[in-house]
Amino acid sequence: MKIALAQINTTVGNLIGNFNKIKQNVNTAIHLGANIIIFPELSILGYPPLDLLDKQTFIDESIEYLLEVSKLSDKIGIVVGGVTRDTDQVGTNIFNSAVFCTNGKIVNVHNKSLLPNYDVFDEVRYFETSKDYSISKINTCKMGVSICEDAWNDKDFWVHRKYDFDPIEKINSLGPDLLINISASPFSIGKEKIRTQMFSQIARKHSTPLIYINQVGANTDLIFDGGSKVFDRNGNLILISNRFEEDLKIYDTEKNYNLIQYEPPSDIEDIFEALILGIRDYCRKTGFEKVLLGLSGGIDSALVATLAKFALGEENVLCVMMPSQFSSEGSIAHSKKLINNLGVQGTTIPIETLFNQFKESLKNEFKNLKEDVTEENLQSRIRGTLLMSLSNKFGYLLLATGNKSELATGYATLYGDMCGGLAPISDLYKTTVYELAKYINRNSEVIPNEIINKIPSAELKPNQSDQDTLPPYDVLDKILYQYIEEAKELDEIISMGFERLIVEKTLKMVDRSEYKRKQAAPGLKVTSKAFGTGRRFPIVQGWR
Amino acid sequence: MKIALAQINTTVGNLIGNFNKIKQNVNTAIHLGANIIIFPELSILGYPPLDLLDKQTFIDESIEYLLEVSKLSDKIGIVVGGVTRDTDQVGTNIFNSAVFCTNGKIVNVHNKSLLPNYDVFDEVRYFETSKDYSISKINTCKMGVSICEDAWNDKDFWVHRKYDFDPIEKINSLGPDLLINISASPFSIGKEKIRTQMFSQIARKHSTPLIYINQVGANTDLIFDGGSKVFDRNGNLILISNRFEEDLKIYDTEKNYNLIQYEPPSDIEDIFEALILGIRDYCRKTGFEKVLLGLSGGIDSALVATLAKFALGEENVLCVMMPSQFSSEGSIAHSKKLINNLGVQGTTIPIETLFNQFKESLKNEFKNLKEDVTEENLQSRIRGTLLMSLSNKFGYLLLATGNKSELATGYATLYGDMCGGLAPISDLYKTTVYELAKYINRNSEVIPNEIINKIPSAELKPNQSDQDTLPPYDVLDKILYQYIEEAKELDEIISMGFERLIVEKTLKMVDRSEYKRKQAAPGLKVTSKAFGTGRRFPIVQGWR
Repeated sequence: MKIALAQINTTVGNLIGNFNKIKQNVNTAIHLGANIIIFPELSILGYPPLDLLDKQTFIDESIEYLLEVSKLSDKIGIVVGGVTRDTDQVGTNIFNSAVFCTNGKIVNVHNKSLLPNYDVFDEVRYFETSKDYSISKINTCKMGVSICEDAWNDKDFWVHRKYDFDPIEKINSLGPDLLINISASPFSIGKEKIRTQMFSQIARKHSTPLIYINQVGANTDLIFDGGSKVFDRNGNLILISNRFEEDLKIYDTEKNYNLIQYEPPSDIEDIFEALILGIRDYCRKTGFEKVLLGLSGGIDSALVATLAKFALGEENVLCVMMPSQFSSEGSIAHSKKLINNLGVQGTTIPIETLFNQFKESLKNEFKNLKEDVTEENLQSRIRGTLLMSLSNKFGYLLLATGNKSELATGYATLYGDMCGGLAPISDLYKTTVYELAKYINRNSEVIPNEIINKIPSAELKPNQSDQDTLPPYDVLDKILYQYIEEAKELDEIISMGFERLIVEKTLKMVDRSEYKRKQAAPGLKVTSKAFGTGRRFPIVQGWR
Repeated sequence: MKIALAQINTTVGNLIGNFNKIKQNVNTAIHLGANIIIFPELSILGYPPLDLLDKQTFIDESIEYLLEVSKLSDKIGIVVGGVTRDTDQVGTNIFNSAVFCTNGKIVNVHNKSLLPNYDVFDEVRYFETSKDYSISKINTCKMGVSICEDAWNDKDFWVHRKYDFDPIEKINSLGPDLLINISASPFSIGKEKIRTQMFSQIARKHSTPLIYINQVGANTDLIFDGGSKVFDRNGNLILISNRFEEDLKIYDTEKNYNLIQYEPPSDIEDIFEALILGIRDYCRKTGFEKVLLGLSGGIDSALVATLAKFALGEENVLCVMMPSQFSSEGSIAHSKKLINNLGVQGTTIPIETLFNQFKESLKNEFKNLKEDVTEENLQSRIRGTLLMSLSNKFGYLLLATGNKSELATGYATLYGDMCGGLAPISDLYKTTVYELAKYINRNSEVIPNEIINKIPSAELKPNQSDQDTLPPYDVLDKILYQYIEEAKELDEIISMGFERLIVEKTLKMVDRSEYKRKQAAPGLKVTSKAFGTGRRFPIVQGWR
């Protein structure tokens, strides 16, 4: 039997677009002689649909498209992700379903049992839990179908489990010939390795071949990396789809496959691919062709410009230099070199006159008061205002260039450098920013080495350096990682060998900056805990 | 038996502050001869603690304070809301608990069964569900204790239920003499009436007296209105705590109470009280004494200035007038009259020079291009930057003055008039803004009638009126209400008698402004569906 793995890039809410993509893939799979084609979780709706699921007309229409998909199944079996209704009068009344169609009809529905409700996931908000399991049969093959999280609770794989039962065990007790898991599993650093190990173990444990099909493409902050896989009954990986792009692979159950020795790419390579896809899909799916950003001469904006060029092409990137009296000579020279290396557009708008005019306008209010962080923020906000004016006038998307270390500590100006429709590197620590720049330069200099090697500075007052305010980034980032991603607390972090004063200061900066992050542009999630929808701290709070 | 209802105003995460408040109330209740004192849900932690609950040291410390509370129970019984641990290795391992203490010890724990996970609530993210029920006994009185949502699933009260069982039924089957529900139930328009009816019906249905104790005070966007209540076994209301302020009432089970004919205050009166409390608590709990805002001459900023004065006192409010060449003569005169009426501080910073300087700086970029919305936004962003400069220099909190109709339709400038740490009226439709202004003026003119009666305009270009861009507010607000709060869709709204073109245009404006709202300042929730944490739409989406 030939099974097609349709790893497609859907757009949340674009039912007709997603349906057309499904139809196209069904036709291709028929053409390739496949007996059945399998699509990712909620592929009719796109993942995650969030509160669109509260709209009854959206649910209704998605179910109409589900029926349309079923009509495509007269020459091929289809397993597709969609929403189905529950009939009682209790709860949300919808399920997250894997729907099996054949002979032009829906013949079986597998509903999701384990609803993730942590980090960026809120599925209990939308769906009901199912505890009914069944087998779908195509030809003589008995398929046990599960949905994403259903496979993530194996008691032999996880020391700490989130749920008290394992749907895969229940499904396996029905004697399937093949396990299928349809997913919408977002990318984060290191996850590809865990997935590969986990699904391998499930196949081996149940002595059943397993197909894992994942969504690809980005929707707002979440990047789905694809990499769908087939494992044999011994848990050997025998087929893998491309990552970070659409793919349609055929798995032939009659064929003998060589085992794949799969070593996932390095973290930095993964991050690079993820961000390119994230930027490209955000622009494409919101209708922006071109982007602009402010180029300061520093590493962050240089990296964002470079990523934007790779994602959208040099003709679609505008870099704006906005020097002040505090800008170093190098900052313009290095920026111009970068613009030249990338082949993108560049323009210069000095801010000194505007800065002086603001100070003049505020003269009476600020009489007898010393200059302080107010004037630093002011420069940043003048730049933000100029960039937004260009964005408004030309219809380009503004990219914010802040990194995770800045956003964590509040070392960023609200309504200034935080302006933007998308913040592509806001989930990258400063040390990762450097790593990624070096990765991009691995074959030849793309980002000028002067930019990589200079001492980081916001250049908002004379002789300023980031380390006037922040601990050295190699120390800071390790503390931030422990606090944000590992949820470690003060004493635990100190016990790892960091200085108490530095840890106290860092944690305080993180806690006090929550109000800024609540107004930050959406970022692209690449770590296990990004600022944004998956991290929910109160602004008003008295803990520490 | 004398039962004290301790309706306290806790701060999320401020364990020591909350403990001290609990201790103080225990001492007062002992002094008043109470046999038992009852506190609201999670009163040791404050509600909602959100991701603070992921911090193990926070949980540990809250449990230490719980033990400290239990030690206060040698002369009085205590029912207090806190977190307790589950001992298995599955799930989040914590419960949302009502803990009964007497004789200096914890003697019983009632865990929450129904975890709300809709709108602003995410409790499944944090807590495990309990299905164990028990009775706590003080003297000879058997108390059946439940927590907030546990009481909100009575099949005789709700047509559509969220959960498939009713904890109150289970508790009642244990034969309690008294039902107690400890809550942290946020305010929204009309909810007080529903609560009163619902708890009355529960008491009557089970023929058992019922005590409902609610949190009071605001934490970030949520305002808790208090109004704790006692119902007799016939469902008659016999005691009610103050609303929108702390209160300690004693209910004497031996005493005969007169029935209270309770008609909740009008919606507009409730909104007024809620917003005052919301502004006051946001400032107090984040450490701001003073606020500032931009006064445009329009109704929105006039209302915010007035609310701020009531919340914080006239000496703590600074109003900034920032006229341009497009400002009407009246806008300054009316603003000055308001400042005079309120007795608050006022200052003026004209923006014309800055506006001209920005246009000069952008001259090359904008060559041969017509003026458009860019220049309108520019004025708004200059004002935002000036206000933020004052905020930074003086340490005053900036209040954003936008209303819900603007935020819904995107009729607001990101990084301009949307700047601010708190947006007090962002959950008020424009028509409600007028109602509230008239309510405030009910006895004498506080907000000048010229401001109430003028035609609404952003004054960002000559002869501008809001209705150049938006449908008339009385129509717009009805459509917005149906779309946002009632989750009605296009055809349903049209069928209510609105013009198709207007409805289509309105819904499109709402959908397309999601990116702006994601970067908006936190608001104060007063409706059943506020923008902010309780409404989660994707930015990238293709539905309609």
